[in-house]
Amino acid sequence: MSLERRKTTTLSVLAELVEGDISGDPSTFISGLAPLDQAGPEQISFLSNPKLRSQLSACRAGAIIVPPALQGTVDRPLLLTENPYLAFAKVLTFFAVPAYVSQGVMPGAQVHPEALIGDDVTISAGCVVGAGARIGKGSLLHPNVVIYPESVVGEDCLLHANVTVREKCVLGNRVILQSGTVIGGDGFGFAPDGHGYFKIPQVGIVVLEDDVEVGSCCCIDRGTLGVTRVARGTKIDNLVQLGHNVEIGEDCLLVSQVGIAGSTRIGNHCIFGGQSAVAGHLKVGDNVTIAGRGGVTNDVGSNQSLAGLPVMPHREWLKTTMAVTHLPEMRREVKRLKQQIDELNRKLSEDES
Amino acid sequence: MSLERRKTTTLSVLAELVEGDISGDPSTFISGLAPLDQAGPEQISFLSNPKLRSQLSACRAGAIIVPPALQGTVDRPLLLTENPYLAFAKVLTFFAVPAYVSQGVMPGAQVHPEALIGDDVTISAGCVVGAGARIGKGSLLHPNVVIYPESVVGEDCLLHANVTVREKCVLGNRVILQSGTVIGGDGFGFAPDGHGYFKIPQVGIVVLEDDVEVGSCCCIDRGTLGVTRVARGTKIDNLVQLGHNVEIGEDCLLVSQVGIAGSTRIGNHCIFGGQSAVAGHLKVGDNVTIAGRGGVTNDVGSNQSLAGLPVMPHREWLKTTMAVTHLPEMRREVKRLKQQIDELNRKLSEDES
Amino acid sequence: MSLERRKTTTLSVLAELVEGDISGDPSTFISGLAPLDQAGPEQISFLSNPKLRSQLSACRAGAIIVPPALQGTVDRPLLLTENPYLAFAKVLTFFAVPAYVSQGVMPGAQVHPEALIGDDVTISAGCVVGAGARIGKGSLLHPNVVIYPESVVGEDCLLHANVTVREKCVLGNRVILQSGTVIGGDGFGFAPDGHGYFKIPQVGIVVLEDDVEVGSCCCIDRGTLGVTRVARGTKIDNLVQLGHNVEIGEDCLLVSQVGIAGSTRIGNHCIFGGQSAVAGHLKVGDNVTIAGRGGVTNDVGSNQSLAGLPVMPHREWLKTTMAVTHLPEMRREVKRLKQQIDELNRKLSEDES
Repeated sequence: MSLERRKTTTLSVLAELVEGDISGDPSTFISGLAPLDQAGPEQISFLSNPKLRSQLSACRAGAIIVPPALQGTVDRPLLLTENPYLAFAKVLTFFAVPAYVSQGVMPGAQVHPEALIGDDVTISAGCVVGAGARIGKGSLLHPNVVIYPESVVGEDCLLHANVTVREKCVLGNRVILQSGTVIGGDGFGFAPDGHGYFKIPQVGIVVLEDDVEVGSCCCIDRGTLGVTRVARGTKIDNLVQLGHNVEIGEDCLLVSQVGIAGSTRIGNHCIFGGQSAVAGHLKVGDNVTIAGRGGVTNDVGSNQSLAGLPVMPHREWLKTTMAVTHLPEMRREVKRLKQQIDELNRKLSEDES
Repeated sequence: MSLERRKTTTLSVLAELVEGDISGDPSTFISGLAPLDQAGPEQISFLSNPKLRSQLSACRAGAIIVPPALQGTVDRPLLLTENPYLAFAKVLTFFAVPAYVSQGVMPGAQVHPEALIGDDVTISAGCVVGAGARIGKGSLLHPNVVIYPESVVGEDCLLHANVTVREKCVLGNRVILQSGTVIGGDGFGFAPDGHGYFKIPQVGIVVLEDDVEVGSCCCIDRGTLGVTRVARGTKIDNLVQLGHNVEIGEDCLLVSQVGIAGSTRIGNHCIFGGQSAVAGHLKVGDNVTIAGRGGVTNDVGSNQSLAGLPVMPHREWLKTTMAVTHLPEMRREVKRLKQQIDELNRKLSEDES
Repeated sequence: MSLERRKTTTLSVLAELVEGDISGDPSTFISGLAPLDQAGPEQISFLSNPKLRSQLSACRAGAIIVPPALQGTVDRPLLLTENPYLAFAKVLTFFAVPAYVSQGVMPGAQVHPEALIGDDVTISAGCVVGAGARIGKGSLLHPNVVIYPESVVGEDCLLHANVTVREKCVLGNRVILQSGTVIGGDGFGFAPDGHGYFKIPQVGIVVLEDDVEVGSCCCIDRGTLGVTRVARGTKIDNLVQLGHNVEIGEDCLLVSQVGIAGSTRIGNHCIFGGQSAVAGHLKVGDNVTIAGRGGVTNDVGSNQSLAGLPVMPHREWLKTTMAVTHLPEMRREVKRLKQQIDELNRKLSEDES
């Protein structure tokens, strides 16, 4: 792996960026970031995973980001911080993310004359922006993004190629949508009419609040009436499904292939593992963690770590799955016990007779 | 939530629309629809969920859609109908769905000169329609839809942005495709050739019959030979996978993230819960319901409600999952019984000796 | 089903194509391929599924592809080969796959002047190819494909409509991407910063080696640093998720809706059934088969067939799921045993007293 050098700097500048302390020469020259086993003398490296600590001694990096407790144990300039992982993210952003340069409405983009386009926006070739739509200052639409009429994209948003935002949906500021994602598709609502199904118009909207990120090929359906909402700071991985009128709280993480059925409300700071799911019309509290493939079929209170289908406390689930693997053996044991009891009964009746 | 007023009308017009009866003033003026707790005196509301019945007394709506049994219990003009949910859907359609206005082939669309385009069609910017494709009367293609050569889109279809319809596939009338969906992608077919895999050409097609709706980011693969078919009236939610040569019957509901493997045939009026799946080359009868996350690994006869992996009758599944949660306890119990039996045996041999 | 006649040929030409032997007249005229129950006297048919053997006697095909053991049992010209399924694939390719005709950069495509476009390429309407991207000789991009800057598409690749390939990603030769798929989306990486999440830039790439095929609406995320890699010959079905820095070996099959979490490494010749999943940072050996819906939560050695959540040997899983269905009955049995033991204890103490 080789990261392009965009900038060069010194250890002291990076320490200020991450609000960390320095052990060693603050003027150490740094031109990039690399993993412990790959970094050279002009690169900074990082120890965020304690398992890799054994790599420290052989590391050739110009400096290393480590927790303060490691000061004095490594013969290298160190950047000391309580959260090396966060510092790594900030330093990587410094070196690897190019500054955004606006390109305006590019040739091949179709922007409706009644759309409102902010300053410093880029609308790439193949994008279509409908009547009454608004694109906020500093937002970047990659090629072939479709913004339906009357939708609002906030400031400094980043929409990747082939994203669809349906009519009247609202994106806050700094929202990121990965490619192929659909915001505001019709919810799955049909009324049986005696022989088939009559489509219930889905006339609500989707609101993605500030700093929400949604992965590739996700589907966040609009409300039937009212709003499907993802609150500030929540991050959603790829191929995730949110049904109509779902509400997700702040700073949640939804890992890939999660499905949340219609009208369910999730609290703040929840984490849903990959392929987990919640049935419709339920309420999940704050600080709830659902393990991968977990299935929630009832309301769930706050501050719990759950797993299984239906979900149970994670520890219980570990015991239960362990017990399940012993089931065939246990079945044989129960048969043996039965035979022994029959034998005991036989003996007893012999004794009595 | 506030729905735009598109039209104003009277209670009697709406009663005719839904074939219901009126209790109260038929000339009551109605300009929109809203939930029970939000409706004002110019709006009609509805009681489709019996749990919300307590909201009726405080409801300020100009009229309320209720089942006939509630006549006389609410001091409001009522629209009486056996199916309030269906009536709600019809009234919402009346107020909230704008009449379609054709815009023809719009600037930025690429329609092949040998494509056949019906009357009153809209083909939006960024759409590409291939040679020999046919787009039926009244159909609307949102931006960036791609129709491959020789495909057929019926009349009054609605294809949302970024949909792909591959070559020679056939859509009936009033078919709705949500954004990002792919109709007629290659099926997953490869022949082992001793070292790797040789691609089996997928030269069949997909047929979606009249009134089929498919959600966002779904994948319905074309047949290897022959047809992958979704029959009339079936509704499919988001992120659903149908393998090559699958056949789905009429008026089925497939909830989000369902996967149906190749060559499997599903009957009419089936319901598949979210994330459920059926293995390949199986047959499922009519009126079968599979609970969310259910996994079908064998043929299934008609008129059943199943759950679990592999599926079993739903009631049995409830008992089984309940029993599973008691497994660790049961395991301890079996150990205790074993000890007691050992003790009994010991005593008996003592008695005998 | 009727396949278009593109070519006509003789049995001897087809025998040479599939390296098979002929029983009957080598000059038999063949103009297409059809299943056993549909083929007419100018078509060749095939027996790849032994269950269909009973259809052989009534088959009206001009010739039939069968294994050598069947020579003499059918009164038709035969094409004899040890691998009829592979022969079927090759003959179908011969008849049904039209030769590729390059159309160059088509009207409505946007190719950056600093992109490098090889000979015999087709770049369809609505495609956008960024600065510094390279499209290899003979590759075909269907409409609305987006290639970000500095990406490389190899020779003879086939990218279907609405595909996205992000910056700097690398596709080998003969790579096929079905519609809607996203190569190189940002991985799901965020560092907690005390109140919310700080985005970790995803500055690695994706490499898809030669002869890889990826289905519709798949998401293969770029590495955080370094590479997400799918090795030569591996085939991926629809709606599959590969997290950042995943590595998949050669000649694997990943069936629909599989999810592989970040940094996990899979060996060669593995098969993952539909909806199966692997947790992050794990290692799976060569020749491993995971049944549909299987969930891998620990490292897995080579040459195993596993199922369940967490996975166990497939045979064990069959026994275990069978035992689970007997659980409610077993629970009742344990209760009965307990009562009998209590009764025995009561009797014994009576006897003793």
